[in-house]
Amino acid sequence: MDDRLKMIFARRSVRDYTGEAVAEGDLRSLLEAAMAAPSANNRQPWRFVVVRERALLDRLAAEHPYGKMIAKAPLALAVCGDLAVSDWWVQDCAAATENLLVAAAGIGLGAVWIGCHGRPEREETARRCLGIPKSIGVLCLIAVGHPAERIAPRTQYDPAKLHAERW
Amino acid sequence: MDDRLKMIFARRSVRDYTGEAVAEGDLRSLLEAAMAAPSANNRQPWRFVVVRERALLDRLAAEHPYGKMIAKAPLALAVCGDLAVSDWWVQDCAAATENLLVAAAGIGLGAVWIGCHGRPEREETARRCLGIPKSIGVLCLIAVGHPAERIAPRTQYDPAKLHAERW
Repeated sequence: MDDRLKMIFARRSVRDYTGEAVAEGDLRSLLEAAMAAPSANNRQPWRFVVVRERALLDRLAAEHPYGKMIAKAPLALAVCGDLAVSDWWVQDCAAATENLLVAAAGIGLGAVWIGCHGRPEREETARRCLGIPKSIGVLCLIAVGHPAERIAPRTQYDPAKLHAERW
Repeated sequence: MDDRLKMIFARRSVRDYTGEAVAEGDLRSLLEAAMAAPSANNRQPWRFVVVRERALLDRLAAEHPYGKMIAKAPLALAVCGDLAVSDWWVQDCAAATENLLVAAAGIGLGAVWIGCHGRPEREETARRCLGIPKSIGVLCLIAVGHPAERIAPRTQYDPAKLHAERW
């Protein structure tokens, strides 16, 4: 693995967190990274709900079928897209999400992508818990905290997934 | 902008390239970064067509309505998803694409995301030029080269896109 890219390889799905809060400056860095993603025609359809209220985090953890780890996280974000702004919002918001996850690794935080869009009942759950209107898509939730587990950097590079010149 | 994350802010859409080829080792690093992305249930639905034949690059440039810059690039990749492997392939392949673009910035290359999926005629163009079967989605093309333009790092951080606790 190329040492210049270690931040990318260090991004792993971290689901266990210490009790420590995420500092305001670190949250800002995560959001700056997310909003440095490319978007089709630079429409920036992304919107973010930043959740730190314990009761709300616990409700998300209880109601999203794959959201249990949010109960241990001091911070969660809902990555949303304004449907009226761009019909590329899923791809754009996925790029913003990946930037945020790589940034979390880069500043020593741990985070995990919890899918919503593509499973209507999960998207609806996030929408209901956070009061997100129908005009806004919810790509995913991201749980963020200080890692209570150490997961080694990796790539899953696999030459069988490559085609030279043509399929 | 957080200096620890400069690789993320340095990723800009670079559309002009010198004639220099992309070294084999650098291509490997890009693909390792792409395949370090997260995917739903770790299904890794991504597949990549690596294009370096000049005639094929020129054909992509001519036939994709937003692909002109490929005519100057020594390398293009088609980021594809195996539809049978995961119905989360669009999000997973977008994360892999973003990793690859950030990695390009991290090793001094320039690259740009050229959208296909979501515009059936563009996806069909890529499929036809590269012999990609119907069972495989084409998320995007990526043109890659040594940058012939310098674009300053940036974030488009905008507090108007944030909601605290609830929408």
